Amino acid sequence: MKTYLECIPCFMLQALRASRMTTNDENKQKQILDEVGKLIESFSMKHTPAEYGAEVYTIISEITGVKDPYKQIKENSIKEAKELIPDLKNVIENSADPLLMAVRAAIAGNIIDFGVNQAFDLKEDLKKILIQDFAVSDYYAFKNEVQKAKTILYIGDNAGESVFDKLLIEEMNKKTFYAVREIPIINDAIYEDAVNSGLQEVSEIISSGVKAPGAIINQYTIEFSELFQSVDLVISKGQGNYEGLSGVSRSLFFLLKAKCEVIAKDIGVNKNDIILKGINLP
Amino acid sequence: MKTYLECIPCFMLQALRASRMTTNDENKQKQILDEVGKLIESFSMKHTPAEYGAEVYTIISEITGVKDPYKQIKENSIKEAKELIPDLKNVIENSADPLLMAVRAAIAGNIIDFGVNQAFDLKEDLKKILIQDFAVSDYYAFKNEVQKAKTILYIGDNAGESVFDKLLIEEMNKKTFYAVREIPIINDAIYEDAVNSGLQEVSEIISSGVKAPGAIINQYTIEFSELFQSVDLVISKGQGNYEGLSGVSRSLFFLLKAKCEVIAKDIGVNKNDIILKGINLP
Repeated sequence: MKTYLECIPCFMLQALRASRMTTNDENKQKQILDEVGKLIESFSMKHTPAEYGAEVYTIISEITGVKDPYKQIKENSIKEAKELIPDLKNVIENSADPLLMAVRAAIAGNIIDFGVNQAFDLKEDLKKILIQDFAVSDYYAFKNEVQKAKTILYIGDNAGESVFDKLLIEEMNKKTFYAVREIPIINDAIYEDAVNSGLQEVSEIISSGVKAPGAIINQYTIEFSELFQSVDLVISKGQGNYEGLSGVSRSLFFLLKAKCEVIAKDIGVNKNDIILKGINLP
Repeated sequence: MKTYLECIPCFMLQALRASRMTTNDENKQKQILDEVGKLIESFSMKHTPAEYGAEVYTIISEITGVKDPYKQIKENSIKEAKELIPDLKNVIENSADPLLMAVRAAIAGNIIDFGVNQAFDLKEDLKKILIQDFAVSDYYAFKNEVQKAKTILYIGDNAGESVFDKLLIEEMNKKTFYAVREIPIINDAIYEDAVNSGLQEVSEIISSGVKAPGAIINQYTIEFSELFQSVDLVISKGQGNYEGLSGVSRSLFFLLKAKCEVIAKDIGVNKNDIILKGINLP
């Protein structure tokens, strides 16, 4: 997905919010906005929002000297998510279709996002998503592909969301690789966040090599590229990964909540819709 | 009121919206965002948002060659507002306190604003504001000052809103000067908009000399500066005028709806609150 003009004011909003999370120095906050402002001219709009987003967050790190501004927030999100797991496991196990309920749980986790301009209440939003209608659902194809698959690559998104991903990976019960970002970027899950979420218990955690808040194929490590092509099933979580993978040629499934108008429009749904969408299916 | 950091993403949003109103050429729209982006570094934040806003809209005019992008919108707003006047006059005349109801009508008109990031439904919002509680009300002081005043300066804001201002000016029934902007900027009322609204029937229309979407004292003409100081009562409509006049030493009354968080915070109220606030009262 290319970047839309709407993404530019959004980058500014994200830069302001992230700069306030990172420093109390108003001069530095202003300096960050100045630098992001100057950067806009270099945005050709041909790349994904995640690629330009990475540049915005790099500026914040450079000006403040803070490499992982969301470290504490990520830890809190994981902790908060873990507290909901026992109840959620019960719901899944007692559901008529546990796999479908686990998919819903994984999508619900996708609301834990400090990049998009949207407040969330994890507990309340979770309840809604567990019963919300899908705007796009390729669930029967998904179930079929999961059953056939020997190996699954699950491309993670945010820390905290990762805890819910674990439920779906357990439910699928296949050899699974869980992909994380190479470096801290917003609240996206990196290796240690995945470990804190317990994903090593159900999967092999692997870095994709990506240094942006979304999949960028040309940043993939050689090992990850090969894995991406060779696994039987790829599951992509969240908006940032959708941006980078919506045009690929291999089959995969997107699991996400459309949290911004731009992504919703690109998918052809409404903001706040939930989606389980397969592409290039056999 | 100084500019807050929140205003910077808002300038970008306004630039995008206004550029789309003005041209269908996406390259020009992007070019506008590029130029606004580069401008941010020059914003010292010591001036009012309206002053920087003027620079943003100047870029749009320069790049598109369109001097009054909101011309048609302003005409439509005036037409739409005029259709509501007969009913509104009835409501005012049959009210227990017609002056207070006319103040409410004038504030209701303040929702006609294409600068702030807020959609509005004139007819529906009008109904609400006619019964909404004031978050700040210096109405008794206002009524007293109106009764005493021989001359009133009424600093207008947007085209369309101007039609509702006429109701209040009629109700006050004093020698009134109605101030408009010197040049077209967003949908702010200029001389011809005031005439289209019929304000010459109840007041003397005068340009303040201001070329920004809000009062800027050092842009006042000498004639207007003298008028501003010498009249018995000054009424300032809307956010842009509040920004420029909140720190002046003469007595005046602000009539507005707080349409953005930043202004609301500065006044000490909540977004969407309505205000009749006097300063430097005798």
